Amino acid sequence: MSATHPVVDALAGALGAGDLLVDAEATARYLVDWRGLWRGRTHAVARPRSTDEVAAVVTACASHGVAVVPHGGNTSLCGGAIPAAAGDSVVLSLERMNRIRAVDRAGGTLVAEAGCTLAAVQAAAAAEGRLFPLSMGSEGSALIGGAISTNAGGTGVFRYGNTRDLVLGLEVVLPDGAVWNGLRALRKDNTGYDLKHLFIGAEGTLGVITAATLRLVPRPVEQALAWVALASPRQAVALLAAAQERFDTRLTAFELLNGAQVELVVSHLEAARRPLAGRHAWHLLVELSDPLAGSAMVEHLTDFLGEAAESGLVEDATIATSVRQAEGFWLIRHALSDVNRDHGVSVTLDVAVPVSAVPAFVAAADEVVGREFPLGEVLVVSHLGDGNVHYIVQFAHPVWARLEAPEDVRHAIFDRLHDVAIAHGGSFSAEHGVGAKLVTEMRRYKSPTELAMMRAVKSALDPTGLMNPGKVLPPPSSVG
Amino acid sequence: MSATHPVVDALAGALGAGDLLVDAEATARYLVDWRGLWRGRTHAVARPRSTDEVAAVVTACASHGVAVVPHGGNTSLCGGAIPAAAGDSVVLSLERMNRIRAVDRAGGTLVAEAGCTLAAVQAAAAAEGRLFPLSMGSEGSALIGGAISTNAGGTGVFRYGNTRDLVLGLEVVLPDGAVWNGLRALRKDNTGYDLKHLFIGAEGTLGVITAATLRLVPRPVEQALAWVALASPRQAVALLAAAQERFDTRLTAFELLNGAQVELVVSHLEAARRPLAGRHAWHLLVELSDPLAGSAMVEHLTDFLGEAAESGLVEDATIATSVRQAEGFWLIRHALSDVNRDHGVSVTLDVAVPVSAVPAFVAAADEVVGREFPLGEVLVVSHLGDGNVHYIVQFAHPVWARLEAPEDVRHAIFDRLHDVAIAHGGSFSAEHGVGAKLVTEMRRYKSPTELAMMRAVKSALDPTGLMNPGKVLPPPSSVG
Repeated sequence: MSATHPVVDALAGALGAGDLLVDAEATARYLVDWRGLWRGRTHAVARPRSTDEVAAVVTACASHGVAVVPHGGNTSLCGGAIPAAAGDSVVLSLERMNRIRAVDRAGGTLVAEAGCTLAAVQAAAAAEGRLFPLSMGSEGSALIGGAISTNAGGTGVFRYGNTRDLVLGLEVVLPDGAVWNGLRALRKDNTGYDLKHLFIGAEGTLGVITAATLRLVPRPVEQALAWVALASPRQAVALLAAAQERFDTRLTAFELLNGAQVELVVSHLEAARRPLAGRHAWHLLVELSDPLAGSAMVEHLTDFLGEAAESGLVEDATIATSVRQAEGFWLIRHALSDVNRDHGVSVTLDVAVPVSAVPAFVAAADEVVGREFPLGEVLVVSHLGDGNVHYIVQFAHPVWARLEAPEDVRHAIFDRLHDVAIAHGGSFSAEHGVGAKLVTEMRRYKSPTELAMMRAVKSALDPTGLMNPGKVLPPPSSVG
Repeated sequence: MSATHPVVDALAGALGAGDLLVDAEATARYLVDWRGLWRGRTHAVARPRSTDEVAAVVTACASHGVAVVPHGGNTSLCGGAIPAAAGDSVVLSLERMNRIRAVDRAGGTLVAEAGCTLAAVQAAAAAEGRLFPLSMGSEGSALIGGAISTNAGGTGVFRYGNTRDLVLGLEVVLPDGAVWNGLRALRKDNTGYDLKHLFIGAEGTLGVITAATLRLVPRPVEQALAWVALASPRQAVALLAAAQERFDTRLTAFELLNGAQVELVVSHLEAARRPLAGRHAWHLLVELSDPLAGSAMVEHLTDFLGEAAESGLVEDATIATSVRQAEGFWLIRHALSDVNRDHGVSVTLDVAVPVSAVPAFVAAADEVVGREFPLGEVLVVSHLGDGNVHYIVQFAHPVWARLEAPEDVRHAIFDRLHDVAIAHGGSFSAEHGVGAKLVTEMRRYKSPTELAMMRAVKSALDPTGLMNPGKVLPPPSSVG
């Protein structure tokens, strides 16, 4: 760390002792993402305890012309919370703003500060007999402010929507230090532009989210889970449409895996059991849930899959007969990232296409990989109901080690397969956001018209460009 | 109409014969809203047939510095589609852009042009065995483009969300005539600012929506409908919370009416039958729906209301035993606007408060009316599940006729009761929008911070201010 920047004195005056970190050891964990892919430097890490303190931090930075990098639970997969290497910025950690301000049980809402973990919000909802349905692997450390800023996805999206759909109101500290109190708890409000949706998913580039009014939902009490084998993604899409028509919102999971992915897990993970005998090209996890006791989910799912088998849509299927067996089915799905990492190098896409285009996307991607990257094995994991495909090109460790320029291969795979997703009406980032990782993709795939609008919005709300610079938007000076 | 403005020649060159209207008789129906409350003038009414033609119209207006007033089905309740009286604008009617461009049954989406009526979109969905759930009294003439521009509400909001929640993508002609193709059909897309949500509800002040990708849902096949009598809004909110916890998304309507409103309808409308014997202070219509045949909705609803009666939450209840009886219950709800209009003058609010605050809002509003407007009778109609209250101060015709300054009374009621809604964390427009009607409320109730952000967005996307001027935002020159 070089000589102390004057902003540090200003911050020290605004924050309590211990809430401002400057030395290398204390700030280190805020300067590298959890996977170790992005590293940065900073003047200081500010850890305000209130909205007023956040406003004071942002005001101090604004008056010194210093950039602000909001930092949540540091679980971003695309470097969204790590400052630039130049070091001319302040990291603003929301971790100490971690109160649940209010719970309205009858109204089905809750007000949480940005620094609450997802798990803490879930627990506050559960204490009132309600469910906060945003859920993901990182929920113990991911903060709600970061989840909102990135419009995070996760396993509840198919039934309950993206994070965006769970937010009724926001409190935001704006780039000039002003506080916008938009903490409404309204289901309907047609009074001007919906500013809330601008900040959700903006990844801290328009302001700092300090609190949110969140929507709670009833808890399901009855569930049924099936493991289904079938011949192709096309049949999976047909089965999905039939299941949605019959079960509507009772259908709470519809996860597609290809045979190679299932084989990799069951052959390497000791605790994993093969749910069905024989090899199959494709597999589905299908879950029904209902808040109404006695709603016979198992019987309904049995009938449905029986009809699907008779019509030839399904090759084989089994329904979990115990909680333990259901956990065994889910284990295969939840363990696959670890297994893939342990047994090779995974080049993983987070793309979305229209649900009905998933079969064509997978076929086209398979063709590209077979032709251009034949040393990779294709693993497919898809939240099919969302059209979200984690298409993985997997390389065994020795294969990867023999590649001449492996990082070039990784980038070439991303470029070629993002092209395929876009050609199928898709997106190059479904649930992880843009961060620092996909800024070049923004330039490559967004139309000049759309980029110009985003830049106009950025300039209008953050005219000095000090909010999380280098994230989301390509530099305004560049062509694109 | 004065001498022809040069923009008219430019428009004539851009549109086919018959697609440009200039004479007074032909343009008249575009210059007054359907209730006759707002009247304006225009250089011409342009009726383009394609996105390119819309772009040509907007470009011509931009190059002549002439304002553009987008016009849909002319069903706005707040003058949003009527040009200013000065006449220095062009009305852009979307009515001739009325194609359904595509239906994706498996993907559950549909692409409609802005000029399709809601009824036409519903029919296109039904032809594929799906439901497009946006529904309101005006659906035969309201256009989907207008519904999206105003984020319209209606009777399906409680179950399916506002219009905003049914839109996956948009095509928009921007103020400079450029076309933004944002017609995605994705359930997940985290690639930068969500521009779609900016245009939804902007009432044509940021650009002209020309087409949209819409979300379709399964059709319910089984329903049950109850008429419930109870003592107070407080008990209605408690019953709502219990019903949501048990039935979740099966609960498709929860409409609250006060006794005075029910009495007015059943005593004046010959076809209306009193669903329950005796007088009650408050009434509810409770509907369950399910796409799953054999789901025993009637039995579940009977059990639920039986328990509620035992616990003292409900005074009396009856469940419709035939489709005809169910239609009789709904008749009371649907006919009330006509009955109210025929038997008096209604000063009707469209406010929303948090669901749990509805009882306190109603009590506080009652107190204000009793004290300050004792000649009015209070009628309450509430989409309770949305926290949306149409609080009506009703004056018998002879009473209204004897008022010295009736319009001052109307405005005073609005001001006083909007104050009450805001004091309860509410909004002064729940589902109707701002239009020309509530611009002064924007100045009165929005914080300077929020207004400044909205103006910054407006200036960024419509720097010349030619898109539907005078709507939504108070003039930038004014204090506020």
